[in-house]
Amino acid sequence: MSPKITTELLRQLRQVMKSPKYVQEPVQAYIVPSGDAHQSEYIAPCDCRRAFISGFDGSAGTAIVTEQHAAMWTDGRYFLQAAHQMDSNWTLMKMGLKDTPTQEDWLVSVLPEGSKVGVDPFIIPADQWKRMSKALRSAGHDLVPVKENLIDTIWTDCPQRPCKPLITLDLSYTGDSWRDKIVALRSKMAERKVVWFVVTALDEVAWLFNLRGSDVEYNPVFFAYAVIGLNTIRLFIDGDRMMDPAVREHLQLDSTLEPEFKIQVMPYGSILSELQAVGAGLLPKEKVWLSDKASYALTEAIPKAYRYLTPYTPICIAKAVKNTSETEGMRRAHIKDAVALCELFNWLEKEVPKGTVTEIIAADKAEEFRSQQKDFVELSFATISSTGPNGAIIHYKPVPETNRTLSVNEIYLLDSGAQYKDGTTDVTRTMHFGTPSAYEKECFTYVLKGHIAVSAAIFPNGTKGHLLDSFARSALWDSGLDYLHGTGHGVGSFLNVHEGPCGISYKTFADEPLEAGMIVSDEPGYYEDGSFGIRIENVVLVIPAETKYNFKNRGSLTFEPLTLVPIQMKMIDVNLLTQKECNWVNDYHRKCREVIGAELERQGRHEALRWLIRETEPLIRVQ
Amino acid sequence: MSPKITTELLRQLRQVMKSPKYVQEPVQAYIVPSGDAHQSEYIAPCDCRRAFISGFDGSAGTAIVTEQHAAMWTDGRYFLQAAHQMDSNWTLMKMGLKDTPTQEDWLVSVLPEGSKVGVDPFIIPADQWKRMSKALRSAGHDLVPVKENLIDTIWTDCPQRPCKPLITLDLSYTGDSWRDKIVALRSKMAERKVVWFVVTALDEVAWLFNLRGSDVEYNPVFFAYAVIGLNTIRLFIDGDRMMDPAVREHLQLDSTLEPEFKIQVMPYGSILSELQAVGAGLLPKEKVWLSDKASYALTEAIPKAYRYLTPYTPICIAKAVKNTSETEGMRRAHIKDAVALCELFNWLEKEVPKGTVTEIIAADKAEEFRSQQKDFVELSFATISSTGPNGAIIHYKPVPETNRTLSVNEIYLLDSGAQYKDGTTDVTRTMHFGTPSAYEKECFTYVLKGHIAVSAAIFPNGTKGHLLDSFARSALWDSGLDYLHGTGHGVGSFLNVHEGPCGISYKTFADEPLEAGMIVSDEPGYYEDGSFGIRIENVVLVIPAETKYNFKNRGSLTFEPLTLVPIQMKMIDVNLLTQKECNWVNDYHRKCREVIGAELERQGRHEALRWLIRETEPLIRVQ
Repeated sequence: MSPKITTELLRQLRQVMKSPKYVQEPVQAYIVPSGDAHQSEYIAPCDCRRAFISGFDGSAGTAIVTEQHAAMWTDGRYFLQAAHQMDSNWTLMKMGLKDTPTQEDWLVSVLPEGSKVGVDPFIIPADQWKRMSKALRSAGHDLVPVKENLIDTIWTDCPQRPCKPLITLDLSYTGDSWRDKIVALRSKMAERKVVWFVVTALDEVAWLFNLRGSDVEYNPVFFAYAVIGLNTIRLFIDGDRMMDPAVREHLQLDSTLEPEFKIQVMPYGSILSELQAVGAGLLPKEKVWLSDKASYALTEAIPKAYRYLTPYTPICIAKAVKNTSETEGMRRAHIKDAVALCELFNWLEKEVPKGTVTEIIAADKAEEFRSQQKDFVELSFATISSTGPNGAIIHYKPVPETNRTLSVNEIYLLDSGAQYKDGTTDVTRTMHFGTPSAYEKECFTYVLKGHIAVSAAIFPNGTKGHLLDSFARSALWDSGLDYLHGTGHGVGSFLNVHEGPCGISYKTFADEPLEAGMIVSDEPGYYEDGSFGIRIENVVLVIPAETKYNFKNRGSLTFEPLTLVPIQMKMIDVNLLTQKECNWVNDYHRKCREVIGAELERQGRHEALRWLIRETEPLIRVQ
Repeated sequence: MSPKITTELLRQLRQVMKSPKYVQEPVQAYIVPSGDAHQSEYIAPCDCRRAFISGFDGSAGTAIVTEQHAAMWTDGRYFLQAAHQMDSNWTLMKMGLKDTPTQEDWLVSVLPEGSKVGVDPFIIPADQWKRMSKALRSAGHDLVPVKENLIDTIWTDCPQRPCKPLITLDLSYTGDSWRDKIVALRSKMAERKVVWFVVTALDEVAWLFNLRGSDVEYNPVFFAYAVIGLNTIRLFIDGDRMMDPAVREHLQLDSTLEPEFKIQVMPYGSILSELQAVGAGLLPKEKVWLSDKASYALTEAIPKAYRYLTPYTPICIAKAVKNTSETEGMRRAHIKDAVALCELFNWLEKEVPKGTVTEIIAADKAEEFRSQQKDFVELSFATISSTGPNGAIIHYKPVPETNRTLSVNEIYLLDSGAQYKDGTTDVTRTMHFGTPSAYEKECFTYVLKGHIAVSAAIFPNGTKGHLLDSFARSALWDSGLDYLHGTGHGVGSFLNVHEGPCGISYKTFADEPLEAGMIVSDEPGYYEDGSFGIRIENVVLVIPAETKYNFKNRGSLTFEPLTLVPIQMKMIDVNLLTQKECNWVNDYHRKCREVIGAELERQGRHEALRWLIRETEPLIRVQ
């Protein structure tokens, strides 16, 4: 992977930063965040402005360009990738390391006195604006909104914003109708004495209306906003997709409805002016509920005294707790996904020794097997198919320049998942197709111990996920090892593969307590730069736990793995496992064999079934 | 314990809340925080205003009195105690429970429109003022400073503020001279471009000048402030204690010194006016460093643009990392403390069966044995000597009304510690003098497993203590049990038994990373209301750990127990321990026998030595 040459682009950007055509006064720095106007993690090509200006296309990163410098902040998952993709114009700021300055501190250290720092007010979340603006102001600088996105002005071949057809989801998938969801939302609004709720996150709009789209790769969402009043529903969406009879029927656009359930469809681009009108018409004490991560532009449309901002919206929280239809859908999706992976691993075992399978071929083959499954829609993220040293690049995606051939001498890490109409999957398995070294097995086993420690943890109702993070690291820590990423993230139900408000991380972000019905990933790892990467990831469902006692009647929770794919036994040093851990592996493999075995049988996939049976033999621990 | 009758006091308080003699405008609510003007946890009798008005004298709690209501916020340690000590005028607000409103939310729910809420600006920390003031303002109310403390106006027999002689500590105890500490502080100030540093916490003043006092029971501190400039040292302190030749010599008050080390002694009461003068004389860009927990009154003395506020001061952080002299002193103190406890437990074993030992007698006996040790100064906190159901009152202190007789039928919990001139101790042991039930042993063993999990944990340099908290709970959680307090707190070196900036808690307060040389407690517990309490507490030193590997060259840390007192084996269900845990107990007991045995021998305490030897026999686990 050779870095993108950005000298000319940076020259052009620095020019428009001073051009009266775009800025009222010259800006001495320009911030290019990762997101789009909805603060999405995965974005459409037209929104990949940070990748365009820098070359670094990982999922998280913020670029800041000043007259003299260009710097990129990203986290541990992307240190290697960013270093590879960016040319020498750029300084990599490794977030999470002790000596790395914050964006604010760095700006203050490099800017001349009284500087203006520009940013697109639609792209920057209000909470970030506030923090950044305060820090800059206290150092004598100003954060200023630049209406026209300056990257767009120099991006001559910027792609069009996508506007693809919608999919309607019936009750068998969603469990609740969009009317039920509106009613529940309005009752949350009434509790907080709020009269309007602004839906800005794309997955929240999709979930609320039981619609899906394909405007953004991997995330089945569509560009839209919604504004929900106590008696009003406004959906801001472009294109002729609202002409689709199935969508009209689903949203009952042509039915005679009670006025409070009548959906008014409005152009996507009219959100700001409509919201400003809402803001102007508020009575004293009326409040408008927005996420504190909504864009600065939309937040400013509501006068400050009328804003009710929360880190997580009621939709985000409701969406995280899956109902029975969603949970059953997720189970079905994970069974199909496991069938595809059993096929893949069986195929890889035969093909890898021939030396003809590259990372890209393996990833394509995984997609091929998944696409054979019922209700397959697309992948849920770019497949991480990485062998040997590429495995240490935590969010690696194989491209022709880096594409490595799988061999019997190197560890292979596959982190992949799909969108099925009934659910979203995300699974990582780390395999060896020859004979792993004792050291590789040792590291793998520590990671496995961490995976089990989280998966089998029992904890009180009301516990936040970040309190479980150290369980995943304890076995690694004992040997002086660790990994530089969180342990788990929320997973949507045929929605975004990363979603809030819960997760398992050492970063004590404001996560909401885990509740029965929530779905998260459990994915500890270990990475050795230049050598190999190991990660073991299941998607797990939070379920009530039976315990001997019940302190303060709080009740307890634990996890049930939804992912049912064998964990390669040849990578396990069984003598490093306790008997309890060994039993966990054997119980897990028994379940894989039963559930996935039955499905492989039903689909007539006999060779993969034989592979599964072999890979799920019980481990025996020699005491 | 019968509750304090507060009807008349509340009537008087509500009267002065409206009296033009004390308030410019009537206040509809008055806040009575726990602390003193230094935000101390332990306070002098003259500062026990919250206890005076409510009867509740636990170490943490905030009272708010409105025209109609009186409410008390406190945490899980004190739910039972507060309920016992307060009469029916008071509503107990159980912090940490889901349905308990915050003080702000509660005020907003009970106050009439446009209310004024009063508070003593010297008692409320600036960060609390800010949060409270903002919340009240957004609901149309006002937080107002009331200069004269309203409790003092009705507290006719309020005791005098203490002003006791000082103790000087030489280099053999402190390792660093006060001049060294001033130099180090000024270098931290220079790093942050700060020209003044205001020392408001009593233990920080004491530590900085290598002085100790006895103005506050249990905490060897004295009432004082300090203001350190780049070339100036001002110490604000009352009384003739500055006439003591030893103190004059120690502070070199009569020597010819470089001007930047010349200490100017000023009256305690002049701090506000002196600080206002400092604030008025600042040049542009000059900053004054204060803790964000300094009082609102002192913080306001510095104009906002000139303030540099941090949650932890450089003194707080430097003080937490003990140097070799301090660590060695702490070791000596813990050896002496263990000798006293071996004597006590040997004595209790003989006396308890006679039915003559009450909680108070046991506590007094513990103090007697401690006071026989060299350099004993006082206790480090009120001894928690509790048997049977009293053990479930987490911060119980026996008083005649509750005093229970120890027996062979109930669990006995002793949480006690002392101040020695070379260090501070804090140790909890839970014992049974008859035959514990299987259930009591089971619970004790879960607590022990948690204690060991923290004590034996290995973790990377830079880890914050809150990431270790769940290790202490895991064994309890597995059985549906838990405890409602944190797992550990920082411990001072002949200073406060509770100190920042590190700790081990599920509450993700802004703790600083653990560093070699820091000293914390490790004290998980289990409490069953109305039945018993269990806690096992050691003070532990953070030390470098040897690990097989060393990821990213970060290095690893672990803990070394400083407390060396046997853990009662009859309370342990050895079959619930893993072999590793069993080895930990045996290694720990071997060290107790070696180190404390040698000291008991040296002191000629042969009976206690025989007790120690018997109590440190190896546990044997039947597989």
